[in-house]
Amino acid sequence: MTRPTPIHRTPSAYAYPLLIKQLLHAPLAVNPEQEIVYRGQVRHSYWTMRHRIGQLASGLQSLGIAQGDTVAVMDWDSHRYLESYFGIPMMGAVLMTVNVRLSPEQIAYTLNHAGVRLLMVHADFLPVVAAIRDQLESVECLVLIGDDTLSLESAPLAEGFVAEYETLLAASPPDYPFPDFDENARATTFYTTGTTGLPKGVYFSHRQIVLHTLATMAALTSAPTQGRVHRDDVYMPLTPMFHVHAWGMPFVATALGMKQVYPGRYAADQLLQLVQSERITFSHGVPTLLNMILSHPDSAAVDLSGMKIIVGGSALPRGLAQAAIDRGIDVFTGYGMSETCPILTLAQVKTSLLGNATTELDVRTKTGLPVPLVDLRIVDDEMRDIAHDGKASGEIVVRAPWLTQGYFGNAAESEHLWAGGYLHTNDIGSIDSDGYLQVTDRIKDVIKSGGEWVSSLELEDLISRHAAVSEVAVIGIKDARWGERPLPLIVLRPGQSAGAEEIQEHLRDFVRRGAISKYAVPERVLFVEAIEKTSVGKINKRLLRDKYQAAPPPSPNSGTHP
Amino acid sequence: MTRPTPIHRTPSAYAYPLLIKQLLHAPLAVNPEQEIVYRGQVRHSYWTMRHRIGQLASGLQSLGIAQGDTVAVMDWDSHRYLESYFGIPMMGAVLMTVNVRLSPEQIAYTLNHAGVRLLMVHADFLPVVAAIRDQLESVECLVLIGDDTLSLESAPLAEGFVAEYETLLAASPPDYPFPDFDENARATTFYTTGTTGLPKGVYFSHRQIVLHTLATMAALTSAPTQGRVHRDDVYMPLTPMFHVHAWGMPFVATALGMKQVYPGRYAADQLLQLVQSERITFSHGVPTLLNMILSHPDSAAVDLSGMKIIVGGSALPRGLAQAAIDRGIDVFTGYGMSETCPILTLAQVKTSLLGNATTELDVRTKTGLPVPLVDLRIVDDEMRDIAHDGKASGEIVVRAPWLTQGYFGNAAESEHLWAGGYLHTNDIGSIDSDGYLQVTDRIKDVIKSGGEWVSSLELEDLISRHAAVSEVAVIGIKDARWGERPLPLIVLRPGQSAGAEEIQEHLRDFVRRGAISKYAVPERVLFVEAIEKTSVGKINKRLLRDKYQAAPPPSPNSGTHP
Repeated sequence: MTRPTPIHRTPSAYAYPLLIKQLLHAPLAVNPEQEIVYRGQVRHSYWTMRHRIGQLASGLQSLGIAQGDTVAVMDWDSHRYLESYFGIPMMGAVLMTVNVRLSPEQIAYTLNHAGVRLLMVHADFLPVVAAIRDQLESVECLVLIGDDTLSLESAPLAEGFVAEYETLLAASPPDYPFPDFDENARATTFYTTGTTGLPKGVYFSHRQIVLHTLATMAALTSAPTQGRVHRDDVYMPLTPMFHVHAWGMPFVATALGMKQVYPGRYAADQLLQLVQSERITFSHGVPTLLNMILSHPDSAAVDLSGMKIIVGGSALPRGLAQAAIDRGIDVFTGYGMSETCPILTLAQVKTSLLGNATTELDVRTKTGLPVPLVDLRIVDDEMRDIAHDGKASGEIVVRAPWLTQGYFGNAAESEHLWAGGYLHTNDIGSIDSDGYLQVTDRIKDVIKSGGEWVSSLELEDLISRHAAVSEVAVIGIKDARWGERPLPLIVLRPGQSAGAEEIQEHLRDFVRRGAISKYAVPERVLFVEAIEKTSVGKINKRLLRDKYQAAPPPSPNSGTHP
Repeated sequence: MTRPTPIHRTPSAYAYPLLIKQLLHAPLAVNPEQEIVYRGQVRHSYWTMRHRIGQLASGLQSLGIAQGDTVAVMDWDSHRYLESYFGIPMMGAVLMTVNVRLSPEQIAYTLNHAGVRLLMVHADFLPVVAAIRDQLESVECLVLIGDDTLSLESAPLAEGFVAEYETLLAASPPDYPFPDFDENARATTFYTTGTTGLPKGVYFSHRQIVLHTLATMAALTSAPTQGRVHRDDVYMPLTPMFHVHAWGMPFVATALGMKQVYPGRYAADQLLQLVQSERITFSHGVPTLLNMILSHPDSAAVDLSGMKIIVGGSALPRGLAQAAIDRGIDVFTGYGMSETCPILTLAQVKTSLLGNATTELDVRTKTGLPVPLVDLRIVDDEMRDIAHDGKASGEIVVRAPWLTQGYFGNAAESEHLWAGGYLHTNDIGSIDSDGYLQVTDRIKDVIKSGGEWVSSLELEDLISRHAAVSEVAVIGIKDARWGERPLPLIVLRPGQSAGAEEIQEHLRDFVRRGAISKYAVPERVLFVEAIEKTSVGKINKRLLRDKYQAAPPPSPNSGTHP
């Protein structure tokens, strides 16, 4: 294969806009033979990726896509998705990453809301698209994605599709003239699966993604020992690529020229097999995914030591962190949200805090230290700074060059998001004297009992340390006397048993040690079969509150705050 | 001392311009107690530095300095200079770093050319300033800098100075409201000591310095083993702070929250003492400085192992690199120039090239791999790309977000610099299959003999491997028959001797091995007492050509190209 020109050059003399294409210069110059692997079956070099990115842009252009158009992708994690991360924005179009876990109706809503012109669909999602096809208002063109040699003719549900991905690329020239344009042009969009109302669209510019990539690179690589990533790492996401660009890490991995492995659909046994066969050293995901990997029967046979795994999306439970550490995994928390591109903090362990296992565990499960350029504060209702003593807490507000400007077509919510010139995370947190942020609760999840705050996250953390507890969610339940009271919903480990009194006594032990106040100990504990999650694997507290509010626990008889 | 607000906040809602002040967020949040050391005598925390930066801005404001004004500094490498790197640009003024090695007349020219309003002068430079004071056209205000308690009254040459640095800071409040403004505003300016004509002013914006810092951080920290820098490193420059912001490394070290040590005036014994007492692990400088450190009598008693030293400004001679490696130093080349802020490439050794001492030495003395965002090409006269085979060579042209827009008040030279949309380095180079750039010559220094190019740098490298040679410069001398012929000027090591024939035989050995062509072997060799350098320690080839052109060697009698 002929090597295409690294990045087509259309310089307007001096100007150098921060465009996603500029992230490819270094890896193509330094490490063009490095591998991009899909499910252990497809292996491409970075040169081939560059070649295919050009073909993708040429192919999309031949289907009528131009600068400013939105192209949506429904695929499992793949080399093709990575090509879309670059090729679609690089031609000046907008990449929409479709959350395939939403209901078909929600998917139709988001595709229409974003004004998608072209939709690329993996064969597995053809039934979903068939079901909503007559609801799609702006989609003019459908492209099929297949894992194996798949022709349009062989897929009855793809009737009316104009092309198949590999065929399209094969017919398209690689030397697409990727233009220079305004770095503030929109590059990506996706929809947050808020626990309230309709999905909200957030969007990020080329400049934002480039700066997020550079700052995250610098933070990840500059750690002296723990939580340190480098060019020789082998990357595989455990966060789906439709979700906040898989935390932006495919951009980081590409810019560093790392070997990258994309696993397709997430199945624990196949993920473990890839970790072993491709020698994965760097990944990231929600706690549920890490738990899935560690608790799978195949897990014990796979050497996970030396892996670096960032856990985010929800707090990293201590028990899970310890289980990962016991396997030799360098596990630590990352913090951010869809609105923040997403990385804000990373809980890499400082050298001065190494050496004591308990301290290390504390640090790894904290929310983290801000990455470069992030201006992070904890403030009171009047936006006044709160002391960094590890105890006082306030709302976490941030500024950084990669925060979403607002919600697409939703001015009111956007204004609220940016009140006072800072993005409001709606998270409550404290900062300790070492600089580590600790999220103590969501503003909406904090429980206000008798005028005091009870942290649902703190209670969840303490309850999760009980040996019989597999999973726990604490919600606030309306209470006539105290306003709200905490209610833990607990899933027990298979074969284990525990009663409410045992859990309460477990908590009272922490009261005696001064870790929590006695009014944080709940009067009632519910044992449940499962805890409902959102489409991205977070505990769905809104749904839990609705479900369990109907059966409020009796208020205690005692006249003092429990 | 009260902790000042980390960075004064005047956010204009969503906008986040890339300003130098934003580099302080991470270190102040992550590592505010880290040390800034001056000559082992003054020790400040980052919090104190932040405090003093605010005081400096307040003090300068009280002296009439406002946004857009240029403030010049004449100081040795110090904590004060670091404060100026931040405080002056952060208030919207322009920092001019004065090359104190220029002649007084040249210094006067550059101060006038830049329109400097306020000049800060270390006591050691009072005689220089006194000599040119009546030539200064725009300077309205002079501030004295002293290492010890120094009052204006005690320095007769400081008559008419308005303040002394420490007294000014002590009288000024730390909470200066550093404003947001256009990221393209000029932050710094300094003058290149070109080997031709008057000094030329280059300038850099806030955006350029922030992006140079982020990309250099990412490149330095992401190396797997060799050439790897991290947050726990202890930094001390061996490149003066007046020269291209000490290669931008004080910005990198600050943004990473490293311990930083500033040595004042460079004296080998004091530098070595600081390396030992402060446990310096990361530095950078020209080959001459490294040579000075290694060959000083005190050197043997100091443990230099584990130090990382980037060598730039001139090619890193193999002999010097080997001497550094023998001391356990992780030495490697960095490449750039005043016009490029300066970093373009770093010769960190890839893991795949480790294990063989000769290969490693080859790589460390190469010019390097491009850092992120740098679009680097080697091209022919028509700007066509040249093969990356390690042999073919062409001019090195680059694009990056931190290249100077041009020379201050010099449109013609600026246009030439940016011909064809790329910055022309005027260096000739090749790129090998591992991606490493190798500068083979300056366009102006390449010797054209009988229609063939002879690389002066390559000859210098080979001659420097002769045991008797301490230093060598090869220049082109006009020749009636061949146009130009190479002439080596050689300084022998003390106590060593060698004749021209011995040097020629040494080179013919490389001809026999196929390393160079036989026409590269010079007919004549001159042994000299010293080789003239420019003010920043580079070999002054222009001066050498002028000096030795007068006595051209006789052309060989043979009728074929030698």
